[in-house]
Amino acid sequence: MARRNVYLKDIPLEEAWRRFEEALAQAGLDRPFSGEEVPLPEALGRVTAAPVWARISSPHFHAAAMDGYALRARDTAGATETRPVRLALVSPDDAPQEAPARSPDHPTPSSLPPAQPVNTGQPLPPWADAVVMIEHVQHLDAQGEPLTSDEGAAFIEIRAAVAPWQHVRPVGEDMVVTELVLPANHRLRPVDLGAIAGCGHTTVLVRRKPRVAIIPTGNELVPAGTEPRPGQVIEYNSLVLAAQVTEWGGEATRWPIVPDDEAVIRRAVLEAARDHDLVLVNAGSSAGSRDYTARVVASLGQLLVHGIAVRPGHPVILGTIALPEEDTEPARTVPIIGVPGYPASAALTGEIFVQPLLARWLGQPPPRKPSLQATITRKVLSPMGDEEYLRVAVGRVGDRVVAAPLARGAGVITSLVRADGIVRIPRFSEGLNAGDPVTVELYVPPDTVERTIVAIGSHDLSLDLLAQHLAERSPGLRLSSANAGSLGGLIALRRGECHLAGSHLLDPESGEYNWPYVRRYLPDLPVVLVTLVRREQGLIVAPGNPLGITGLADLARPEVRFVNRQRGAGTRVLLDYHLERLGIAPEQVRGYRREEITHLAVAVAVASGVADCGLGIRAAAQALGLDFVPVAWERYDLVIPRTFYEEARAGGLLAPLLDLLHDDRFRQAIAALPGYDPTPMGEEPTAQAG
Amino acid sequence: MARRNVYLKDIPLEEAWRRFEEALAQAGLDRPFSGEEVPLPEALGRVTAAPVWARISSPHFHAAAMDGYALRARDTAGATETRPVRLALVSPDDAPQEAPARSPDHPTPSSLPPAQPVNTGQPLPPWADAVVMIEHVQHLDAQGEPLTSDEGAAFIEIRAAVAPWQHVRPVGEDMVVTELVLPANHRLRPVDLGAIAGCGHTTVLVRRKPRVAIIPTGNELVPAGTEPRPGQVIEYNSLVLAAQVTEWGGEATRWPIVPDDEAVIRRAVLEAARDHDLVLVNAGSSAGSRDYTARVVASLGQLLVHGIAVRPGHPVILGTIALPEEDTEPARTVPIIGVPGYPASAALTGEIFVQPLLARWLGQPPPRKPSLQATITRKVLSPMGDEEYLRVAVGRVGDRVVAAPLARGAGVITSLVRADGIVRIPRFSEGLNAGDPVTVELYVPPDTVERTIVAIGSHDLSLDLLAQHLAERSPGLRLSSANAGSLGGLIALRRGECHLAGSHLLDPESGEYNWPYVRRYLPDLPVVLVTLVRREQGLIVAPGNPLGITGLADLARPEVRFVNRQRGAGTRVLLDYHLERLGIAPEQVRGYRREEITHLAVAVAVASGVADCGLGIRAAAQALGLDFVPVAWERYDLVIPRTFYEEARAGGLLAPLLDLLHDDRFRQAIAALPGYDPTPMGEEPTAQAG
Repeated sequence: MARRNVYLKDIPLEEAWRRFEEALAQAGLDRPFSGEEVPLPEALGRVTAAPVWARISSPHFHAAAMDGYALRARDTAGATETRPVRLALVSPDDAPQEAPARSPDHPTPSSLPPAQPVNTGQPLPPWADAVVMIEHVQHLDAQGEPLTSDEGAAFIEIRAAVAPWQHVRPVGEDMVVTELVLPANHRLRPVDLGAIAGCGHTTVLVRRKPRVAIIPTGNELVPAGTEPRPGQVIEYNSLVLAAQVTEWGGEATRWPIVPDDEAVIRRAVLEAARDHDLVLVNAGSSAGSRDYTARVVASLGQLLVHGIAVRPGHPVILGTIALPEEDTEPARTVPIIGVPGYPASAALTGEIFVQPLLARWLGQPPPRKPSLQATITRKVLSPMGDEEYLRVAVGRVGDRVVAAPLARGAGVITSLVRADGIVRIPRFSEGLNAGDPVTVELYVPPDTVERTIVAIGSHDLSLDLLAQHLAERSPGLRLSSANAGSLGGLIALRRGECHLAGSHLLDPESGEYNWPYVRRYLPDLPVVLVTLVRREQGLIVAPGNPLGITGLADLARPEVRFVNRQRGAGTRVLLDYHLERLGIAPEQVRGYRREEITHLAVAVAVASGVADCGLGIRAAAQALGLDFVPVAWERYDLVIPRTFYEEARAGGLLAPLLDLLHDDRFRQAIAALPGYDPTPMGEEPTAQAG
Repeated sequence: MARRNVYLKDIPLEEAWRRFEEALAQAGLDRPFSGEEVPLPEALGRVTAAPVWARISSPHFHAAAMDGYALRARDTAGATETRPVRLALVSPDDAPQEAPARSPDHPTPSSLPPAQPVNTGQPLPPWADAVVMIEHVQHLDAQGEPLTSDEGAAFIEIRAAVAPWQHVRPVGEDMVVTELVLPANHRLRPVDLGAIAGCGHTTVLVRRKPRVAIIPTGNELVPAGTEPRPGQVIEYNSLVLAAQVTEWGGEATRWPIVPDDEAVIRRAVLEAARDHDLVLVNAGSSAGSRDYTARVVASLGQLLVHGIAVRPGHPVILGTIALPEEDTEPARTVPIIGVPGYPASAALTGEIFVQPLLARWLGQPPPRKPSLQATITRKVLSPMGDEEYLRVAVGRVGDRVVAAPLARGAGVITSLVRADGIVRIPRFSEGLNAGDPVTVELYVPPDTVERTIVAIGSHDLSLDLLAQHLAERSPGLRLSSANAGSLGGLIALRRGECHLAGSHLLDPESGEYNWPYVRRYLPDLPVVLVTLVRREQGLIVAPGNPLGITGLADLARPEVRFVNRQRGAGTRVLLDYHLERLGIAPEQVRGYRREEITHLAVAVAVASGVADCGLGIRAAAQALGLDFVPVAWERYDLVIPRTFYEEARAGGLLAPLLDLLHDDRFRQAIAALPGYDPTPMGEEPTAQAG
């Protein structure tokens, strides 16, 4: 069980692709798959493998385009309001092949030119070359008396000449037999299916769906639905990869979890390769003691790449499996990708390698996301040797599109869930400075960016509820909320990076909330404060409060291990305010320097025994089944630049959000949270004389 | 069987929607559907019906983020290259709960601080608070001698201090229990499924799929797969509507074709309403003698709207069916839409009415297509009273995006197949002038527009083959080809509306092809001519050539009915050239004024007996099983502005197209067409001294 003390050999992405493509080309796997015939009702979203040519014309006969009467245009020449032309109605059965010569002066059925009733879509009689609409004729009875409907009509009168081929759909108006209807490599949409059926087909030749096997490996993995013990991890990468494959037009097979056993993995890979076009092994692609994927690939075929200079994603394996000739099958090469185990890495490896490969096999162009230009909100240091796929949240604030970097850890799948797009930081770049222009490749439609309310500041559970109620009441409108602490929110407002900031900053001198900080940090930005909630802060302690903590004074006890919030957080300001009143110096508080950035993280620290207590909201304690020692009620406001506030009054972006603050259902949802008081919601506290 | 001589009462689209929405609101059908629990592997693309909250944290234990050794950060304080810190390796079994005090001067296992091997993802021992990477340590054996791997190691040495929580993924790094992971009304993507599984769920509550019944009605309809007789129409609207419903997140049921019988239609509608959320009846929504839909709706519920001022689409019916209370079911209202029968109308009615309704029921925002600004290429007269949905082809030519109007007939499904988008011409507008700026709502991704080669001019079969080979060889690159005749192509080039024009214009004076016209029509635009093919023109005649036509001289025979091409077509120029040489005046040719705009349309006119002959290419005659009397071989060139030609030489948009002209497979495909000669393909004929 030796662990090799070696780096993976990371090569640049382009070089990795080049090697992979070369191997695919050698095996003839670099081109679109052949076709299979599928019935039209099952062909939606499939890709044509050959052009579709019209087998019959549509229409395949000259057809009436209106309800009315078929006639010969030349019989109506000279018709006017004052000198109408009269035609004799004939039924399809007794209609002449060639109508008799025109003789308007003798208005008997036999001597008048013919007109035959036709409905839309019916064939034109062979002698006719035009249609007059039923609304444009006067019906007459056999005695020549006017009628109000066509019932009992024997003649019609026409008061304007009819042009040849008027209201006729000629043969082939839509499609002419032998014509190209659709090219190859076309993804079939609903109207395409109609056109293919309309020109005489019942099936269509489409590219075979690439079959992709996904093999999750790892002793630590347990299937979803299992309550994981410490050290166990719920296996969901195969779920994500399978859904990606489905979305990209392939057919995925998920293997059951395979233990870290080289022989077992090898067997699974071989079995998968036999009836799949691509094998994904997740993970074991690194260089740890239980990372067998590279060895398995090398033993079954060719290990082309082990390690790519991409973040997240590093330990990617690219290779091929060589299947020997067998009774039933010829020798065959099957590409294999070792997908890293971290979920963000796994999903991005899917996008970077699997998606383009499937596109190639389906005859589709390489996938391209829509992109837009944005301004990055924070400094980002990037590892020099790697190309980084930085996940960002994107929104338009005023006349700027801002991109806020999200968590960068490869283990954080929510960074992809919350991402509106990706910023690629190339190799040999040191990173980005706040305010740098960047290109964002979007996961969302570009107009989503225009319908995003960007909140940066102190995070609160009520913001989650606000986001949820907004999504329900105003589908398509999003509240994107980033946690930067109360002070961080005011700074983001100053930089024009958000529409609003959640803030609960207590001024130690005046005891006033938020306004003193607004005056200090936003002297030049007119803002409105709108109260969201009052909420209860207190000490989160272990169940049963084993250390008997009764208040902040206990933080001075040497055995009490505290967990703090980050600088700039309103809760940190609250703590410092109270510590000063109590005369307790920060150095006296054990753990004062251990910082967490959310209430829930503080509660987690207490729940996991890393700390004995931390200052936070009651709801966080209750969420984790912890006890709570109340300290104070505080006001939590939304700080909104006056321009956005006034746009909202005129129905602008923030209007539905401000409306929600007066919505009873939303107030009730807030009131149901422990330690929350919605009474002042929607009030607009003004600054005290300062 | 009286046919009512009445107009439909067309009301504006907004008013129709208002009435429909009001009725839906009264029935409580204006809000998102409730949820159903589905397993995560089946939830891709579904829409959350409730927020997803984390049931467990992820990770749910402090986990090593790297392969390496778990240790206490404070044990490594002061480690440097010259003064490394030595730690004793312990196994998980004998690891202390609290490690012994540090004692670096006595390097025995018992007195040294501990380090425990951990692999990525494994839990940290309770006493540890950091991880050092395996690559960053020196392994030593029991005697303190350096090793090259970890095999047999008893100690490790560290040469730099390790920061607390380095390479540790703390509990909840990704998701903290009780945290909001996804809001309601969110369409689930692959990574979302991973996040939901990762925070402890195996299912997700998603909006129930709206069930839509589609009932095709009409005596003229036959199912796909039937060889239609004159008057019969292949039923494919239900295929298109069902595919639309599927694409928009619903579940479609296609009824078998129902005859035009009011009682039978009523029965089908009632049956469909019982277990569907929406009924579509196609068609019978007009006011003809067999149009029963309005009466059926009125008799079963409420006829809200009959006729909407939209083109194409006019005869739309909106209504509700009232289902009485029954043993098994409460009273219920089911919306019903009468969908017009013409295929383009039917598909657009789906987009205008069905898609927004399904979006509403799924809690999604009203559908919005991406849009862009373009310049319309032709004058478009629009009916004053209607809102028109003009289908357009879109491409970028130089620095302009041009939108070319496509066929406007409601019966032309290929106008939607070929459409890149829709231009809405509002009511009370008279239409558009060539060069007007328009907003195009796109069916295609915006970047498709950048990868479209726009060809306007004479149409030729070889252009279809070119499009097909391009789509195969350069996935994502499109050749959009509009037929405007050779002269129309030159004029489009002059207006900057296309990248190239197919042209076969014979100069009567010099006998030279194309260059004299280029000099006359494009005096200021430098162009290159590239030959595509030589092809054979002749007289297309009925099988067996019953009139014994031997050449153009026979057109002067009074009994011979000719069908002509439009003015500006190269074939028309060829005809006029030869007629003049033969001394035949246009007035002598019967049918000289009957114009068709393609070779195939000319062949269709001959095949259907409307004309006895027409001038066209051999392939068109052969496609329809007609006979052919050769007249001349002619050169068909591509006229390309020099700027585009030179960009292509540098790898620009047209490069793959020009490459194809030297591709053997493409040449062979052309050679296989009757009456085609690829020999001069790719040559660049220069102008004769003129």
